[in-house]
Amino acid sequence: MSPFTGSAARTPSWEHLRVDFTDGVATVTLARPEKLNALTFGAYADLRDLLAELSRERSVRALVLAGEGRGFCSGGDVDEIIGATLGMDTAQLLDFNRMTGQVVRAIRECPFPVITAVQGVAAGAGAVLALAADFRVADPTARFAFLFTRVGLSGGDMGAAYLLPRVVGLGHATRLLMLGDSVRAPEAERIGLISELTEEGRADEAAQQLARRLADGPALAYAQTKALLTSELDMPLAASVELDASTQALLMTGEDYAEFHAAFTEKRPPKWSGR
Amino acid sequence: MSPFTGSAARTPSWEHLRVDFTDGVATVTLARPEKLNALTFGAYADLRDLLAELSRERSVRALVLAGEGRGFCSGGDVDEIIGATLGMDTAQLLDFNRMTGQVVRAIRECPFPVITAVQGVAAGAGAVLALAADFRVADPTARFAFLFTRVGLSGGDMGAAYLLPRVVGLGHATRLLMLGDSVRAPEAERIGLISELTEEGRADEAAQQLARRLADGPALAYAQTKALLTSELDMPLAASVELDASTQALLMTGEDYAEFHAAFTEKRPPKWSGR
Amino acid sequence: MSPFTGSAARTPSWEHLRVDFTDGVATVTLARPEKLNALTFGAYADLRDLLAELSRERSVRALVLAGEGRGFCSGGDVDEIIGATLGMDTAQLLDFNRMTGQVVRAIRECPFPVITAVQGVAAGAGAVLALAADFRVADPTARFAFLFTRVGLSGGDMGAAYLLPRVVGLGHATRLLMLGDSVRAPEAERIGLISELTEEGRADEAAQQLARRLADGPALAYAQTKALLTSELDMPLAASVELDASTQALLMTGEDYAEFHAAFTEKRPPKWSGR
Repeated sequence: MSPFTGSAARTPSWEHLRVDFTDGVATVTLARPEKLNALTFGAYADLRDLLAELSRERSVRALVLAGEGRGFCSGGDVDEIIGATLGMDTAQLLDFNRMTGQVVRAIRECPFPVITAVQGVAAGAGAVLALAADFRVADPTARFAFLFTRVGLSGGDMGAAYLLPRVVGLGHATRLLMLGDSVRAPEAERIGLISELTEEGRADEAAQQLARRLADGPALAYAQTKALLTSELDMPLAASVELDASTQALLMTGEDYAEFHAAFTEKRPPKWSGR
Repeated sequence: MSPFTGSAARTPSWEHLRVDFTDGVATVTLARPEKLNALTFGAYADLRDLLAELSRERSVRALVLAGEGRGFCSGGDVDEIIGATLGMDTAQLLDFNRMTGQVVRAIRECPFPVITAVQGVAAGAGAVLALAADFRVADPTARFAFLFTRVGLSGGDMGAAYLLPRVVGLGHATRLLMLGDSVRAPEAERIGLISELTEEGRADEAAQQLARRLADGPALAYAQTKALLTSELDMPLAASVELDASTQALLMTGEDYAEFHAAFTEKRPPKWSGR
Repeated sequence: MSPFTGSAARTPSWEHLRVDFTDGVATVTLARPEKLNALTFGAYADLRDLLAELSRERSVRALVLAGEGRGFCSGGDVDEIIGATLGMDTAQLLDFNRMTGQVVRAIRECPFPVITAVQGVAAGAGAVLALAADFRVADPTARFAFLFTRVGLSGGDMGAAYLLPRVVGLGHATRLLMLGDSVRAPEAERIGLISELTEEGRADEAAQQLARRLADGPALAYAQTKALLTSELDMPLAASVELDASTQALLMTGEDYAEFHAAFTEKRPPKWSGR
């Protein structure tokens, strides 16, 4: 538990997500398989609040975001979200769209790596959740569809017009966001949208293995790597080099760097403390 | 016609380009096939002015830029441009180079998607026109050459040093802009420079099909997707997420979003009004 | 020699690098093959100072950075760097990490192209040196490993978290910087990390050929292409187009642009003066 903990209570149970903790790895499962895990207002809100809680508690060292059943996530539920937003006033519409964006910012800004395990459909907001993660572990059934224009909305939803060009380049990003066509696993791998392609039905298992590896590793080094990757997309070269220098100088005073040297000298594997 | 129309007259005819309008699709053809559609001062000026006119009129929903004959565009004409610029004073040189850059900005900033149909050579300014477009539909004879250094100039011409790294990555962009070597269709597809590779001789037809699909779709959703892709290349993550939220909130009050939901509920295809 | 030369003396000999000059091409060789060319404090300092000297002298038109023996560079020496930094105070740690970053900035900002010739290992700081270069000429034995997290440090070292997403996209960059896994030549080529893949054992020769071609070419055009590529990563579109326009207007008053036109008219190859 971080010493920087105030009065806010831990959420006793998450109603709209399934959340498991195993030795530093949080597994968050979208669990409405009969609806291909379509998102509801509650699921967005729980994702936003869960990531904020885990970020301040500091007990989690890696997080897997998975979907139950044959798809990862089909996006916002047509009835519960699209239908409901049609009756909303301006302030409510802004509140809803800010909430979804906050989930993406939380994924990019939390201090632990986020791994999505994708099989089957990752569509609309589901595709953006996967895009925002640090790792996309996918099996050959995975297909990504940024289908926002298909419902009459902007392809730039939840930061997609920011993130996708930075992952696959502006040409592919324009095509995917404008047309909303499905991208199947082979193309997704070719253009850099998949981090690790697994055998069929093995995305969850491979995502857990990667999470285990990350949770057992030098957590502070990973956290700073992620923070710098996220920050330096928005920074010029000279400032980035300066940020790298002060970050490395700081980590060189940490326990894990000394542990590496000791382990190397003693010809044994390092025991990472994450400090 | 937009209500925001003032006194400026519509240009009665474009002397340096062939321009056709068919049901919301503008087709602009570089039509000097005997010179591989080499650009002249007049062609640049007409492209700049045509894009400005179409952007304020709002009657066009997609634009195809094509080249007549066996090549798309061989770039600035050696005699009519390179020769002429050698006699220019400083102010004229700036005016010329600003004009060519204004064409690229107009392509990136106009409110409708721009599709280039590329067969054969796309060289120099011709390669940058294709690069600036939202879609590059090309056949296997297409070859791109950013050959500015070959004439003693900077590879950063008309925004190429901004755009190319964002489309193909800094490594490929450095190689292409420094050396000016030709990139043939298979490599161009592999590195993300081609949006859609067609059979030989079918680039024009495929570009028209894509333009038709876009012109029949939700025009406002496409326009905002393009605007966000263009803007968010230059914006940080948090501001991008905020821009996405306010854009989506706005479009959720539009006709096309309600039409999608009605059509989905009634199990029929949506009829997009572009509003 | 540049007229903008002051009192600073030329360094008579570089103790920590092998440096050769041949007709406008500088070849800088990391020459501790028994240690896979592991970097020492002295090697970093010499790289920083050599690049600064060459940048102000203006006699070099291309630079090759190579490694002697079966590897390019295994990164910072475990004993001479990691061991030594464990005993340093805060100011020294900052000085060290700023020095390494200055080498990367010097590679990106020097007015001549930098080509790395990579065979075997390019690890840690060795991988970042290659990444910062304009060209990575590599043979099939090349493998890149950004292994900073493996020693308990941030993957964002020497600008790597800035540069790598801009070369290979954010997805691949996250994977490579977080995990520190080796990337072998075929994958490195596929994701855009290799500029030119040679036959085995031919990286040095191919790098020299490329350097010769660049040194014989229009040096000012190359210098401005590089400067614009570096600058425009950090600039918005409109400003980039304006920078391109003023750069091109300037180069259109130069000798090489006129020479191209004369040579083209006389149907002979141009003789580039680099002015």
